[in-house]
Amino acid sequence: MYVNDTIAAISTAPGEAGIGIVRMSGKDAFAITEKIFQSSSKKAFSALNNRSINHGFIIEPNTGTKIDEVLISKMKGPHTYTAEDVVEINCHGGTVPVKRMLELVLRNGARLAEPGEFTKRAFLNGRIDLSQAEAVIDVITAKTNIGMEVALGQLEGSLSYNIEEIRTIIINMLAHIEASIDYPEYDIEEVTYDTLLKQAEEVKEKIQSLLKSADTGKILREGLNTVIVGKPNVGKSSLLNALLKEGRAIVTDVPGTTRDVIEDYININGIPLKIVDTAGIRETQDIVEKIGVDKSRQHMEQADLILFLLDVSNPLDDEDKTLMKLVKNKKTIILFNKTDLPTQVSQEEINKYFEGKTMIEISALKGKGLDALEEAISTMVFGGQVAISDTGLVSNIRHKNLLESAFDSIDITIGTIEDNLPLELVSVDLKDCWDYLGQVTGDTVSENIIDQIFANFCIGK
Amino acid sequence: MYVNDTIAAISTAPGEAGIGIVRMSGKDAFAITEKIFQSSSKKAFSALNNRSINHGFIIEPNTGTKIDEVLISKMKGPHTYTAEDVVEINCHGGTVPVKRMLELVLRNGARLAEPGEFTKRAFLNGRIDLSQAEAVIDVITAKTNIGMEVALGQLEGSLSYNIEEIRTIIINMLAHIEASIDYPEYDIEEVTYDTLLKQAEEVKEKIQSLLKSADTGKILREGLNTVIVGKPNVGKSSLLNALLKEGRAIVTDVPGTTRDVIEDYININGIPLKIVDTAGIRETQDIVEKIGVDKSRQHMEQADLILFLLDVSNPLDDEDKTLMKLVKNKKTIILFNKTDLPTQVSQEEINKYFEGKTMIEISALKGKGLDALEEAISTMVFGGQVAISDTGLVSNIRHKNLLESAFDSIDITIGTIEDNLPLELVSVDLKDCWDYLGQVTGDTVSENIIDQIFANFCIGK
Repeated sequence: MYVNDTIAAISTAPGEAGIGIVRMSGKDAFAITEKIFQSSSKKAFSALNNRSINHGFIIEPNTGTKIDEVLISKMKGPHTYTAEDVVEINCHGGTVPVKRMLELVLRNGARLAEPGEFTKRAFLNGRIDLSQAEAVIDVITAKTNIGMEVALGQLEGSLSYNIEEIRTIIINMLAHIEASIDYPEYDIEEVTYDTLLKQAEEVKEKIQSLLKSADTGKILREGLNTVIVGKPNVGKSSLLNALLKEGRAIVTDVPGTTRDVIEDYININGIPLKIVDTAGIRETQDIVEKIGVDKSRQHMEQADLILFLLDVSNPLDDEDKTLMKLVKNKKTIILFNKTDLPTQVSQEEINKYFEGKTMIEISALKGKGLDALEEAISTMVFGGQVAISDTGLVSNIRHKNLLESAFDSIDITIGTIEDNLPLELVSVDLKDCWDYLGQVTGDTVSENIIDQIFANFCIGK
Repeated sequence: MYVNDTIAAISTAPGEAGIGIVRMSGKDAFAITEKIFQSSSKKAFSALNNRSINHGFIIEPNTGTKIDEVLISKMKGPHTYTAEDVVEINCHGGTVPVKRMLELVLRNGARLAEPGEFTKRAFLNGRIDLSQAEAVIDVITAKTNIGMEVALGQLEGSLSYNIEEIRTIIINMLAHIEASIDYPEYDIEEVTYDTLLKQAEEVKEKIQSLLKSADTGKILREGLNTVIVGKPNVGKSSLLNALLKEGRAIVTDVPGTTRDVIEDYININGIPLKIVDTAGIRETQDIVEKIGVDKSRQHMEQADLILFLLDVSNPLDDEDKTLMKLVKNKKTIILFNKTDLPTQVSQEEINKYFEGKTMIEISALKGKGLDALEEAISTMVFGGQVAISDTGLVSNIRHKNLLESAFDSIDITIGTIEDNLPLELVSVDLKDCWDYLGQVTGDTVSENIIDQIFANFCIGK
């Protein structure tokens, strides 16, 4: 059962900074603030305007001790983040001030918020649906501007809109079926089956179109797992360094882990390239070189993209050829490195392995050909894709899985309709499809799954 | 020359969090926001109320791309942090959203703020004085609640008040002197000298009283440099662990350094104990044990406090005695450890070295005697000190040095008066004293020093 008790948490990142925010939401948020806030305007908190910012001091009510000088935002529900009464205490951003402020509101009646509980309340109170709530964390953890735009689109409801559009068709179909079953005398069977088939195919098409965007969406959200393959001394480190330089590496903290665990992403035209297993590469220039064939093989299995480097200033040797066989059937871009030197490799030999693959001449050391490489990566990820701003993108694996299940259900439904099987049977699979889609927006999702989703949020959101 | 161009910075700590804030201040802050903010209420930014919080979207004005969903605080000068027009953009707290927001406002006419520039403007615009501005960073970096209270008191102007009180006396003295020089016919010389002497002594007393608080203030601000001394296996690690457990270690980031550099403080009744050179102590239990006599000697030189451990379950040996000689003339608390076992050490022997020092029986392993130790540390730091809330504390080394110079000047002044030297001479040293005190509040400080002070701030404050 949902209770609107009052929750509180530190909503800014830990560390020393100008501003830290302790946020409260719930039925007692205003009453608690009333007890601890002394406004510079001498007004009681209850007398302050809605959506106003107020300067003053937070006071320990029992001792009268000043806790901090603050700006307080008063936001009356339901037009707030959680749809409840919300207070944001904007205090000094150090470890002690923020922690002290949180302790004070907890002592005065608030409860420490669970991870994601503010957003969970926004969902439970019906302000946003589940896919929008999930987008919040994607906005926060976005790795590139484009990734953030995708998440923001989802937060604004682009995916929800698409899902609801499909569900409306299904609801109409189900209503039609029910009417036909209840009042067969008013219905012509062929018309029903024809109409249902047309509608089911529309549903299938729409789901398919959403699914098409899922690979791109996932890459934009989680990064493109990339591995640079090539024999020792072929220039892997130089390539990595050139890409790092070009792509302005994005270093992000991974939430829920210690600060020591850092992942590096290289931003290539908005695509976060996640170079696999290159920890510390910038410190020890030769780590990539030390990765042997076995290790490379293992990485290639997991990679979304392989950048395969050949040194064309030397004839191909056995080691090159072993690797060429390995990458042959993978999503690979072939890079001919050291093209500033005379070529020793015949085109014929190359074509034997790599016919049809993208091949680019580069000089990693001199930064030559990197533009072409970046364009090739863009084309590969966005290839054929309409502009992101036009459609929502499916970027969440949970959504993708549900859409796949919905796709299967509608596919079975179509078969059932085509075989003229009883409408009761058609309706069963159609309901499944409706249910799967509803799990994306949270309409038909279990409490368990909701809890799981919000457990991945940071505290304070 | 001071220009109120518009500055912007990220004011929250870096990292993934619910909320991130980009702050702007200056004459164009509102005009820039007008260009990039689309209010949900459909009102233009200029039409929004002062001190209101407004929901909406930040839009890239040229492309129409939505940058983020935000809450915007509009605060019209001069009743703001900087005394200028201030806008706070409360956006999603990730690396990309916050960075993107900052880039957008910079592209639309703001300039990246220098470290501490918001607070510097509050000072230059006369909203706060220099000692108050300096207190801002002390609040943020406070290590314990008491440390924060001291800083907060200074931020509210407790030190400024005390300084101005003294300066008023000096100004009156200087006026009196000037009148006596200009119109000697209206003055009786003895009365002048008597009055001046009385006033000068009042000034001296007040400065002295401020200086008295400086040691405590410095310790509360910077921590008490503490070193645990004792021969191997005497229980140093156990003591450290017991203190860490008891005192809830405060782990803070040190601003301006990488996140790897972390300092640990143990909070003992509000006093931040900084255990010297114990990096990684909790991981490798025996690091302290490895510190030999030479290393201990070096640490003892720099320590504010030595905790000297003796194992009384064994007779004193040469190693103990060497250390006893070393700590004898230092600020030391003697801890008799392993008192749960039969004592093998005679009181007489102990008294020979430590007469008059605080001695406490403890059992580090069993947590016995720790209360007494904590009380001894409190007494040592706060000993004889009036309650912090009653007076301001001098916690800043710059202030302490200036007060010392002011003290010397007033001391010379008193000598000059007592020797009945010409009033012109009295006035010279008195003016020095006035000047030194004015440097605390920033009234008479050079631009150079101001720049130096704010350079130590974090960006965004």
